[in-house]
Amino acid sequence: MIDGPSPPPSPWMPWMRRALQLAALGRGRTSPNPLVGCVVLDAAGQLVGEGFHPRAGAPHAEVHTLRQAGERARGGTAVVTLEPCCHHGRTPPCTEALLAAGVRRVVVAMADPDPRVSGQGLAQLRAAGLELITGVGEAEARQLNRAFIHRLSSGRPFGILKWAMSADGRTALPNGSSQWISGAEARAWVHRLRASCDAVIVGGGTVRADDPLLTSRGQRQPEPLRVVLSRGLELPETAQLWDQGPAPTLVAHGAGVSAQRRSLLDARRVERLVLDPCGPRALLEELARRGCNQVLWECGPDLAAAAIREGCVQQITSVMAAKLLGGNAARTPLGDLQLIDVNAAEPWPQQRLQRLGPDLLWTLSA
Amino acid sequence: MIDGPSPPPSPWMPWMRRALQLAALGRGRTSPNPLVGCVVLDAAGQLVGEGFHPRAGAPHAEVHTLRQAGERARGGTAVVTLEPCCHHGRTPPCTEALLAAGVRRVVVAMADPDPRVSGQGLAQLRAAGLELITGVGEAEARQLNRAFIHRLSSGRPFGILKWAMSADGRTALPNGSSQWISGAEARAWVHRLRASCDAVIVGGGTVRADDPLLTSRGQRQPEPLRVVLSRGLELPETAQLWDQGPAPTLVAHGAGVSAQRRSLLDARRVERLVLDPCGPRALLEELARRGCNQVLWECGPDLAAAAIREGCVQQITSVMAAKLLGGNAARTPLGDLQLIDVNAAEPWPQQRLQRLGPDLLWTLSA
Repeated sequence: MIDGPSPPPSPWMPWMRRALQLAALGRGRTSPNPLVGCVVLDAAGQLVGEGFHPRAGAPHAEVHTLRQAGERARGGTAVVTLEPCCHHGRTPPCTEALLAAGVRRVVVAMADPDPRVSGQGLAQLRAAGLELITGVGEAEARQLNRAFIHRLSSGRPFGILKWAMSADGRTALPNGSSQWISGAEARAWVHRLRASCDAVIVGGGTVRADDPLLTSRGQRQPEPLRVVLSRGLELPETAQLWDQGPAPTLVAHGAGVSAQRRSLLDARRVERLVLDPCGPRALLEELARRGCNQVLWECGPDLAAAAIREGCVQQITSVMAAKLLGGNAARTPLGDLQLIDVNAAEPWPQQRLQRLGPDLLWTLSA
Repeated sequence: MIDGPSPPPSPWMPWMRRALQLAALGRGRTSPNPLVGCVVLDAAGQLVGEGFHPRAGAPHAEVHTLRQAGERARGGTAVVTLEPCCHHGRTPPCTEALLAAGVRRVVVAMADPDPRVSGQGLAQLRAAGLELITGVGEAEARQLNRAFIHRLSSGRPFGILKWAMSADGRTALPNGSSQWISGAEARAWVHRLRASCDAVIVGGGTVRADDPLLTSRGQRQPEPLRVVLSRGLELPETAQLWDQGPAPTLVAHGAGVSAQRRSLLDARRVERLVLDPCGPRALLEELARRGCNQVLWECGPDLAAAAIREGCVQQITSVMAAKLLGGNAARTPLGDLQLIDVNAAEPWPQQRLQRLGPDLLWTLSA
């Protein structure tokens, strides 16, 4: 939402939009890196190169694009969704590549929040005499990389909490029956949502009750890391998650768990991680260290409430079926948030609605 | 939703739309009668009269309109949203008025489902040699009078169940705090909703917990009947509902209630009604006998679930706030529906979404 009259759009905005489209093609595969897209125009303003960052370890967007443009980039313009890097990582700095290619103008949507870059890339280009235009499509670029930005500012991945409930707010019947509340379209959407995440997290209760597979059904390669947060390791001997064929599984648990329970996982070669304290925040800090930008909470009400209380949820995606389940003892999306006054519950500022076949998807964002 | 190509619209449809608009002006005041609107055109097709049925006991729509048209109706056309009546009720039959006015053509949206009319009005007009065009705007007319039609076919008023819940399906915190989950716009909408209903029903628990006023805040005159369904009459000595100044109150209870409990209400001149069996269906049958076409359930989860189980709810209006309340022991919209398999919960076929300020209104209709 924009209040008041908006400034006239930049003449570079159509090209930036194309660069943002290109950047989005890397969704789900670039972590810990951001999504970046680039187009290069020749001196006459004709498009001579397009590229994006396809996955961590592969060349950056600028490099792909400049390779495609070749000599035609000389005297031209590079339009990039993020400030070009200026440090030697797994690949050489993009600032050097831009200078070597001889572009005379760089249009950038936003500065890189990575403290290793953050303004220094732009400073290098400016010092070399290039014309710099910044802030073109900045809001769109920030939205595209909200997860990367959140991780850099908070030290934890952007957390999405997903549930599917009936119109009366139930996620299961009193007897536990819950498959399926939502329709086929909503379930396919959940697979796409998983494909946009670096890890999918459940608690021990969900493993025991639902024995989920938790993959994107091949829409993301590699599949997201499947994570079980189970303080006491009260886990079943057999579970789809213990088969590491479809995707890797990590089980995080508390200190002081019996050797017997640990050996159950060790025998199946499931990675274990001791967390102390063992909770959502400590888990997300570890997942950030492992390079996760975005994670999906697909857990039961108590772990979901704990994740919210510990600031580990930035977006809620509620799939709502036009059905009634009822039941005083039926499961609901959230356990206790420790509120004592309704007026203390703040509305989530951003809302979005869409249809998923017969179901409704209500997205709330912080 | 229309499947396949639709037939060409009737040339009378624009006039029928106007008649439907006029009919809707009587909303909330015509029960036990339906909403009816009428326009009259002269022989040249010029509009010479408009009218609607303003309230029970007042002249029917046709009479108002023909009075306005006077002699100009002769040789003209009457466009009516419902088959004209042919029986002497509180007012003389409309068929006679149409014949006396000398109209030569009558356009009608739908037959009157009232067994005292149902086709006989049309037959009288046809027998008198008038041209009859029927079925113009029938779907819209049926929607407009869905409550009247439902009462005639079922013997019970059309039931609307309303609740306000958080995004995680809670209608109160574990400590009972519930005012206010929704915002000012949603609460104003509830007053308008009440104004469209002939009675508003709660259970004893809602009287004890919320002490509600249950009026339309003057948007309907007279105010809807306020009904408490309380099998055992466990009601507080003081309550806003016992003051009959703003609106009348009826308390329905079971047989065999102590004289002491009965006398509490009798002393306050609150009308009591013994129901045996004492439940939603018996209550609605009584309210239909009292001329209610549409009622609003504003009750707690257990009475709401009972009303659904007994077929007393045809529409659900769920006000959803973009807030989280949480709480394992927090109140939810519905008690037990006695389902044991999620797949047995049928989706409600019609859905509508609208914004109410910061809140969402999700309407499900059978």
